[in-house]
Amino acid sequence: MIDKAELQAQIARTAQQVRAANPMAGSITNSVTINFVANAQIAVGGSAAMVYLPDEGEFLANAGGATYINVGTLLPIYEETLPRTARTLHELGKPWVLDPVAIGIGSLRTKLLAQFKEFKPTIIRGNASEVIALANLWQVAGDGGASQVRGVDSTQAVDEAREAAVALARYTGGAVAVSGETDLVTDGETVCLSHGGSTFMTQITGSGCSLGGVCAVYAACAETPLAAALAGVNVYNLAGARAAARVDAPGSFQVAFLDELYKATPQDIANNPFEAEEA
Amino acid sequence: MIDKAELQAQIARTAQQVRAANPMAGSITNSVTINFVANAQIAVGGSAAMVYLPDEGEFLANAGGATYINVGTLLPIYEETLPRTARTLHELGKPWVLDPVAIGIGSLRTKLLAQFKEFKPTIIRGNASEVIALANLWQVAGDGGASQVRGVDSTQAVDEAREAAVALARYTGGAVAVSGETDLVTDGETVCLSHGGSTFMTQITGSGCSLGGVCAVYAACAETPLAAALAGVNVYNLAGARAAARVDAPGSFQVAFLDELYKATPQDIANNPFEAEEA
Amino acid sequence: MIDKAELQAQIARTAQQVRAANPMAGSITNSVTINFVANAQIAVGGSAAMVYLPDEGEFLANAGGATYINVGTLLPIYEETLPRTARTLHELGKPWVLDPVAIGIGSLRTKLLAQFKEFKPTIIRGNASEVIALANLWQVAGDGGASQVRGVDSTQAVDEAREAAVALARYTGGAVAVSGETDLVTDGETVCLSHGGSTFMTQITGSGCSLGGVCAVYAACAETPLAAALAGVNVYNLAGARAAARVDAPGSFQVAFLDELYKATPQDIANNPFEAEEA
Repeated sequence: MIDKAELQAQIARTAQQVRAANPMAGSITNSVTINFVANAQIAVGGSAAMVYLPDEGEFLANAGGATYINVGTLLPIYEETLPRTARTLHELGKPWVLDPVAIGIGSLRTKLLAQFKEFKPTIIRGNASEVIALANLWQVAGDGGASQVRGVDSTQAVDEAREAAVALARYTGGAVAVSGETDLVTDGETVCLSHGGSTFMTQITGSGCSLGGVCAVYAACAETPLAAALAGVNVYNLAGARAAARVDAPGSFQVAFLDELYKATPQDIANNPFEAEEA
Repeated sequence: MIDKAELQAQIARTAQQVRAANPMAGSITNSVTINFVANAQIAVGGSAAMVYLPDEGEFLANAGGATYINVGTLLPIYEETLPRTARTLHELGKPWVLDPVAIGIGSLRTKLLAQFKEFKPTIIRGNASEVIALANLWQVAGDGGASQVRGVDSTQAVDEAREAAVALARYTGGAVAVSGETDLVTDGETVCLSHGGSTFMTQITGSGCSLGGVCAVYAACAETPLAAALAGVNVYNLAGARAAARVDAPGSFQVAFLDELYKATPQDIANNPFEAEEA
Repeated sequence: MIDKAELQAQIARTAQQVRAANPMAGSITNSVTINFVANAQIAVGGSAAMVYLPDEGEFLANAGGATYINVGTLLPIYEETLPRTARTLHELGKPWVLDPVAIGIGSLRTKLLAQFKEFKPTIIRGNASEVIALANLWQVAGDGGASQVRGVDSTQAVDEAREAAVALARYTGGAVAVSGETDLVTDGETVCLSHGGSTFMTQITGSGCSLGGVCAVYAACAETPLAAALAGVNVYNLAGARAAARVDAPGSFQVAFLDELYKATPQDIANNPFEAEEA
């Protein structure tokens, strides 16, 4: 497993490099939080572009430093767009982030998520229920446990998804980030537990989606998928805690949170409290 | 007609129960205000999930405590999604809220709104012009008067829609909420006039749509459609007035409004000024 | 060329007339910034309505004072919706604003933008790279130079697009607004350079899109396309500078910016610093 100090150095370099290079991370994402995803990606130093059509997804896969795919509000054309985009990313060896939002709802979602197994996302980001459900769908865990997805919210705790997250990361060779009160990030070898954030993050829509988009921005510059995912999780925990200290309600929180994403320095992000342990 | 004190007790219990149970109210709604709808639903204590596809609409109809259908920015697939979702809701006897946004624009919108007559929405929420137009389309009012819809804005006063609202509520057996300077809510027997709000609510997009989404959240826990609709209208008038007292422009208003939705207590909501009278 | 003082008088009358008449400017625009477009249009005194379907686009073209078409996140149905809407606008002689976002990405986008040449948009609004690329696509400039589009961001400076902007304006008989640190607005005869704004406008998503929507609102009441476009650009530079003076990060900036759009008076807008010179 990787040493914590080395991981922190990687995180700091990643965040620094993103600020310097302004990498473009295209997204195919849901319409509920699409604006928040773009603004969060820009706030940490990236550039955003969103599309729906198949050849446009392929274009962004080629042109971007990384790509974010979120299956939130599926449109009929996604049956073509998402596999073509993911295939392009996989063939080019470009980093991409998968957010399996609301896995289990509807036949197209299940079909698309099953197809993605072949294209091995660099980072998978979800809540505990979603990560367990994806591990089950892909049959990568001996016994991932039963997933309890209710709409888009998790009904399970992060540590229940540890085995599934490790198994998914070992299968993809990338990283998996499980969002919750304490966030778990793993590459199948090291498991990191990142602290901070705020309950207000569950009282606005889009903190999970936009974290996925930010992980894609970091993945465009990071040395490893683990460093990219943990950089994203750390800056979210940092900005969430700082924003929560300044406000008392979710409308103000959303504004303050974007501000704090923008203000977080590479060193702040690397220093956000986390532990690293053997998987 | 119901006694005002009893209605207030029902409202307080509804808001209390929503905070305790965090009911999921799925939505099929327009892309302009979809983020605001979700954040408002969460701010009052509910859980949000949005979809576009037919089987996903049916899934949410089954899984949610109530559902919100807003015909704002129609997509081609809605020709299938909306009737299947509304039929499922009707057959299950689940509460659902219809927002007939921009009724009169385009052939698909008219066709869908005509079909909804059969599926009797539990709550109809619109501005005066929209409510009059829907009563005319469904031919439920002797003479609902001529509707003047211009895009998505009402050109008529709330009291002009009283007859149409009462007729619609008597037809559906549910409630109708007409938004305006003073809001009218009726179940066909009692007419309530709720006060408060702010002119800033007409200077941002989405106060109407998000009220519809919040009514769906309350409908998941309310004893009657009238209590659910009036709880929604009351919390909007309360939060709107409180937010307006703190700001001087619409950008700040939107943030403050979400904050005040979150802060409103069940008793505050029940006590927002309103009158109840014979329909 | 038009005298600067006369242009300022036209701008003041336009902004005044918009506040008095509350003109409706319908939009077909991308889902990333659709909410911000609507709120910005309302903040300056207009009324917003957004659609996706062909007959609804034609309806808004007929019913609105002007229309905004932004090719950001194309949907398959746009292949039908956009040409039908633009044709209707052209045949009715109604003002419309084209935002050629991300020109060069995907085959449908190129096809649609090529078709728009025939329907001569009243105002074209884009960044330098987009304006150069459109001039090349329409072959209206002797040598517009090579466009460098990267996703949705410009990689070129505004003055590099001066020749392309003038050529486009001469072709359409309307105005062209090029967004950048100093904004260029031209009708092919006069070139105006408008100052102000803030770097925060590049650190949020939607300042360009919403400017296009606001130009459409002004176009509904303006005496000339140049006055409409410059009114829009001026109010953006004014509100951007005022908002930036009050905040230190992009989340707060977005809120403050909407507030300042709302507070800007017609005289403020006319007086925002700009030069007018021979094209």
